[in-house]
Order: sequence, then C-alpha cells, then structure tokens
Amino acid sequence: MALKKKPVTGMKDILPAEMEIRDYVIRLIKETYSTFGFSSMETPCVEHIENLSSKQGGENEKLIFKILKRGEKLKLAQAKEESDLVDGGLRYDLTVPLCRYYANHANDLPAPFKALQMGNVWRADRPQRGRFRQFMQCDIDILGEPTILAEIELILATTTLLGKLDFKNFTIRINDRRLLKAMAAYSGFAPESYDLVFIILDKMDKIGLEGVAQELEKEGFDKQSIETYLSLFKEITNDIAGVRCCKEKLAQVLKPQYAEDLETIIASVEAVKSADFKIEFDPTLVRGMSYYTGPIFEISMDEFGGSVGGGGRYDEMIGKFTGNDTPACGFSIGFERIAILLLERGYQIPGSSKKKAFLIEKNMPGDKLLEVLKLAKEEREAGSQVSVTIMKKNKKFQKEQLQAEGYEEFCEFFNR
Amino acid sequence: MALKKKPVTGMKDILPAEMEIRDYVIRLIKETYSTFGFSSMETPCVEHIENLSSKQGGENEKLIFKILKRGEKLKLAQAKEESDLVDGGLRYDLTVPLCRYYANHANDLPAPFKALQMGNVWRADRPQRGRFRQFMQCDIDILGEPTILAEIELILATTTLLGKLDFKNFTIRINDRRLLKAMAAYSGFAPESYDLVFIILDKMDKIGLEGVAQELEKEGFDKQSIETYLSLFKEITNDIAGVRCCKEKLAQVLKPQYAEDLETIIASVEAVKSADFKIEFDPTLVRGMSYYTGPIFEISMDEFGGSVGGGGRYDEMIGKFTGNDTPACGFSIGFERIAILLLERGYQIPGSSKKKAFLIEKNMPGDKLLEVLKLAKEEREAGSQVSVTIMKKNKKFQKEQLQAEGYEEFCEFFNR
Repeated sequence: MALKKKPVTGMKDILPAEMEIRDYVIRLIKETYSTFGFSSMETPCVEHIENLSSKQGGENEKLIFKILKRGEKLKLAQAKEESDLVDGGLRYDLTVPLCRYYANHANDLPAPFKALQMGNVWRADRPQRGRFRQFMQCDIDILGEPTILAEIELILATTTLLGKLDFKNFTIRINDRRLLKAMAAYSGFAPESYDLVFIILDKMDKIGLEGVAQELEKEGFDKQSIETYLSLFKEITNDIAGVRCCKEKLAQVLKPQYAEDLETIIASVEAVKSADFKIEFDPTLVRGMSYYTGPIFEISMDEFGGSVGGGGRYDEMIGKFTGNDTPACGFSIGFERIAILLLERGYQIPGSSKKKAFLIEKNMPGDKLLEVLKLAKEEREAGSQVSVTIMKKNKKFQKEQLQAEGYEEFCEFFNR
Repeated sequence: MALKKKPVTGMKDILPAEMEIRDYVIRLIKETYSTFGFSSMETPCVEHIENLSSKQGGENEKLIFKILKRGEKLKLAQAKEESDLVDGGLRYDLTVPLCRYYANHANDLPAPFKALQMGNVWRADRPQRGRFRQFMQCDIDILGEPTILAEIELILATTTLLGKLDFKNFTIRINDRRLLKAMAAYSGFAPESYDLVFIILDKMDKIGLEGVAQELEKEGFDKQSIETYLSLFKEITNDIAGVRCCKEKLAQVLKPQYAEDLETIIASVEAVKSADFKIEFDPTLVRGMSYYTGPIFEISMDEFGGSVGGGGRYDEMIGKFTGNDTPACGFSIGFERIAILLLERGYQIPGSSKKKAFLIEKNMPGDKLLEVLKLAKEEREAGSQVSVTIMKKNKKFQKEQLQAEGYEEFCEFFNR
C-alpha cells in the first residue's frame, strides 16, 4: 500500500505558527479558569458506543467515528449490521463523557465539582472550509450546584478569559428554557409541538418576525397562537425590563423565581464583569440541544459572524447515568475559532522570550563545539530560546528563514 | 441500551490531583524544550490505515484501534475481510505521523525542523496494571540535521527537563545501530541473522552473558561466532575507552567516524550537562524498532526499574513518504510514568498560587452577592484562586473537603 502524505479527510496538521497561538491560549485558559477554582480533568477520547448513542448528543450521534471490535470479539462473518462490529467510538463532545466521569467518581470529587476540560472531539461532518472533523473543545462545568451562582461564575470566568485575549464589544445573550416553554404555553401551543416551534423561532436572526410567522403558519399552527406568540417578542425588550415584563405577563405559566433568577444573573454579571462586553436578555435564544433544563446562554461576536461559545443548565443528564439527578451547568467556548481569529489578526503573544540562533561552521572540532554548547546553556538558563544549528552555504537565505521563524539575534561561530 | 459508568477497557479517567501534575509537567516540557528551539506541532489522532500498516511501527501495528468507514463507503454485505471495512486508525506513536507531516509540509518548515509533539497514542495491548490503551507521548525530533549536533541537543534538552523535575542519578545509555551490526559482522554472524541475534542480546540485563550464550547456541549459531561475540562484550567497557576499543577492534567492519561521533556525543553531553546524571556507552543496547539507522539511546532510572524514555536516529523513514531520505533523530520520554511517579512522590508544584474558598450563606440577596463577587474578582485579579461556593449545613465537613482539594483560606459571608 502506498503511503499518504495528506492528513485524513477533514482533519488538519497544525503548523508551528498556529501551535504557538494555541499553546498560549491553552495556557491562558488554564490559568484564568484556575483563578475561578476550576480543576482540570480528562476522559479517554474513546467512549462506549452505548454512551455515545444514548440520545444525549442530538444530531451529533449521526456523526460518530466508530471503532471496530478487536481480536476474537470481531465476528465478521456473523455480523448483520454495523452495531455488531463496533464497541466504541470517538467522543463527539465533552459533556456526555463528563457525566459518565462524574457518575463513576462522584465519591472522589468535591461537591460542587468545578471541572475544566480541554480536549479533542470528532464529528464526521461533511468537510467544509474552517470546519474540521477533529477539533478542540474547551468546557467548564459546575456539577452539584443548584443555584444561579453556577451560571454567574461560568459567565464571569468565560468573559474574563475573552477579555484577557483582547476580545471586546461582544454580547452574552441569555434566556431560560423554562421561559421559552412558558411563552409557548402562554400562546396556546401544545407541549408536543414546542420542539418544532423552537426550531422555527431559532431562525429569528435570519428570517425576522415575519419569516417566523410564515413558517409557523406553513406548519399549520393556530393563527391566534402565532399572533399571541409574536406579539410577545415585539413587546419584550432585550434587557432586565424585558425579563420583568415576562414575569408579569407569563405569571400563569412561569414560576416568578425563574424570571427573578435571570434578572439576578444579568445584574450580577453586568456589575462584576471585568471585560468590555454586554449581557442581554434574548427571548428568541433557543440553543439546539434538548438536554438543557434552565438558563441558556451564548456569546455573539461580530468578528465571527455568529456564536463563539455557549452553554446552559442541564440538570437531568447525570441522572441518566446514576439514577439520581444532579444539578449541572456548563459553558463551552469555540477554541478553534478563537485560535484562528487570533492567528489571522497577527496576535502578538505577550511576554515571549527572545529567540537567538547560534550558527556554527560545519565539522566544528569537539573542543570548539563544547564552548558553543556551554554558551547556549548559559543563555537558555537565563531564559532565552537558543537554537544551535549548522551554518549553511547560503547564509543569507538561512538567516531569512530563521527570521521568519521569529529569531531576532544571530551569533556565528567559526572553526578557527 | 444501558449507560456505562466506567471508562472503556484499558483507558482511564484522570482525576484532578493527577491532572494538576500532568498540566505542570506539560507546561515545563513546553517551556524547557522551547529554550532549545523546539516548536510545537500536531497531527490528527486519526491516521490513514495505509500509513499505520506501513511496517514502520513494528509490533505496534497489531495493536491498532481501527475506524469503521462511514456512509456509503461502508459496504457491510460485500465486506470479505477487516480491511474492507476500515479506512483509518488511531495513531500508535507520534513518529509515523511526524514523517507524514514533514513530507506534507517540508516547504513550509524550517530546515532543520526541530519539532515538539505531545499527544495521545492508542495501543490495544492486553490491559495490565499501570499500562493503558490510551497514553500521552512526548517526543522531540530534529529533522534535516545529519550531524551529531542533533543527538547532542536532544540529549541535553531531555536531561535538562528531567533535572528540572528533580530527577537525579539516572543514566543515559547510548549505542549505535551500525556499531551493533559491526560487532555481529566481526563475530561472523550472517547479516540475515542480525535481528535474531539482537533480540537475544537485548536480554543481557536479565539473563547475563551466560544466558545470552545459551540462547544463541540453542538457535544453532556457530560456536566460534558466539565466543568471539561474547568476548567483545567482556572486553568493551561502558565508557569512552570502550568506544575507542571498538574503533580499533572493529576497524575492518566499522567506519571510524561512527565511533568518533559516539565519543564526541558522550564527551559533549558529559561536559555541558545541567542535571545530575551520567552518560554511558552500552554496546548491548538494542532498542526494538528496526527503523533506527545510527546512534540510539535510552534513559534508565532505578526508581522506574527500567527505561523511562529513549530514541535515536532514523534517517530512512521520511524517505518512505517522500522518496528522498531526510536525516532524522528523535527522543521520546515516558510522560505517563513520569507523571505517576511525581504523583506518588507527593511532588509539590513550585510556585502554585494560593487557593481561597468563599463560603456564602444560602439564598443570599442580590446586593450582598454582588459584594462577594466583587471581592472575589479583586482577589482573582491579584492572582489568587478563589472558589465561591454555597455554605453547607455541615460546614466542618465542607471545609475538610476543601482542604483536601488544597484550599488553605476560608472566608464566610452571611446574609445579614
């Protein structure tokens, strides 16, 4: 079989310039989130196929890279369908493995457990520009904390990080799944049609109120319901007044506590934030995943033309593993998009150390070489990055190459 | 299907205490190797099945986790053998993907290219204590450098790292595949029997000279050859004198340059080293992988009861991808073993910041909560790790738990 030079379809090799930015962002993430009390943890990249097919992953379950059984367990001749052949798959997110991990280790973990996970996930999506089949996710989750302290800390930690990366003028949009449902209930939609209603509502930014009305009508929903529903969105403003308006209007179908909690989250984040952003109530925010049970949020940034992260409360997923519901809330940032944007911006990593190249003549005698190596050692111990390399015939070109790699200083050493 | 709480067979969940050590070691590795001019790079975890089955991976090729084809490409009914079903696999090392990467990007990479790779690899080994099917590898490689400057820099970088992690009294054992072959040739073994001879020689630490003699006899090798061979090992000392002895004795079958190079490597490392270790010539060192073409080396540490890393020169692997041989030399350290040993030792991470817990009474009113959050913000900005958490009924137990997590300071906040 011929060897292949390209990476597998839809996955990418990462060149040193991009890695430098990625390594810096990873370091900053770990540093920043640790000041908020989050602890790093990790699960294997391979997960039980049963867990990946548990309906917690929505559409992503169709995109699993599946792993063939090995040895005697693989019975090719008897296999009737795909599921006879596989026993594992590559994780498509970090949330399902986190819940398994918590179910497995709850006794060894603090309560609440504030988890930081950075790791690759895999989805066999159709390859397209800027979207890869292997990509890094970066999630923080607070497990075992039922109060909105979790939501507040997650939003503060995430926005502090974005601020440290010089992101400005972004918006945290926030809503609550229960409020979303209350609005649908108030308008007279039947509970079994909520999912479809929300899928249509989710298109609001693209098709506007009129478009949403048309699509709802096309699905045959009651005209009166549609009218009531849309009038709510016209009336409710994107601020704390809007939340209060919901609380009053929806009093029959919404616990006042949910609106008050949303108000406290918005007010607290607004008052304590350490980055330049705004937090907005957005009653049209849906978030795809059906596992959310409470507040949901998303980061919008114009530079990205859309969301660069999001999360919410999912109090019922851990119970699928343990039998007992455990409160849980998480926030995930789009690591890949952030890294690429910084790279494209020519982001200068703060506090990088000086890069020096020591060029030595070819066939340097042992004692001369020792002198050079000792000098390099001293410089390295003093914090410089020193690359010792053999001088080439075309020294001018060699130096240009090294400059492109970030080397600023050159020392030349000759045999005599 | 029932959900599973345990990780998949042979792979492990990593708890926060171990992650803290791992994160520290990763940071130190990146820092230390960057002072030697190594640049981070990454390849996808999934590799073409053709590349993984290219005979560059020796025994590891039997242990590949294979990935099922997807969509229309998977023709289950027509599949006659395993290879009809798969198009990829999880990488079992970082060297084969590195060579593919270099072949793919040589034009965009500096020459020589000094690469640092840290990443998971997977091997479906029989599960056993302390050995996992997913584990982190950490490799540095210098591609495009034909001289022993590569070997010297790799050994200096690796030992500097180990020194920074407080490892002492370890030994770098070094040999050369060409010297190994010259010794076999000198003794009269036929080239086609070298591999078998080396497999037996490799057992020297365990079975001794006598044992090696017996096994060689059992394989039916010529008695005179065996005697000549073993007398060489009696004569040759584990130091520079031993290398010089080889140079003289093996003059007919070994280029003097190879022995002189080995001498220069040993002398240079000895003179410039910045950690407390010794470098020893070991004519019995074999290293399993058949792809090595020149100097080979291994780190021995008593605490580990064996090797904790190794590497060597493999000048012919990149050529398998490109058609043109490119000099290459690498050094890999046993990240997992190092991390576990530090964890077991109770290694104290230098310069960790202070961990403070803010305990707040339940149902704290919004304005009070704001005060606490603002205080937490100030402390975090000053570099402390602050976790804000709800006070529990059993405050004593809660504080004990937090102390076990490393929290040293507690501040309590009440509603009135």
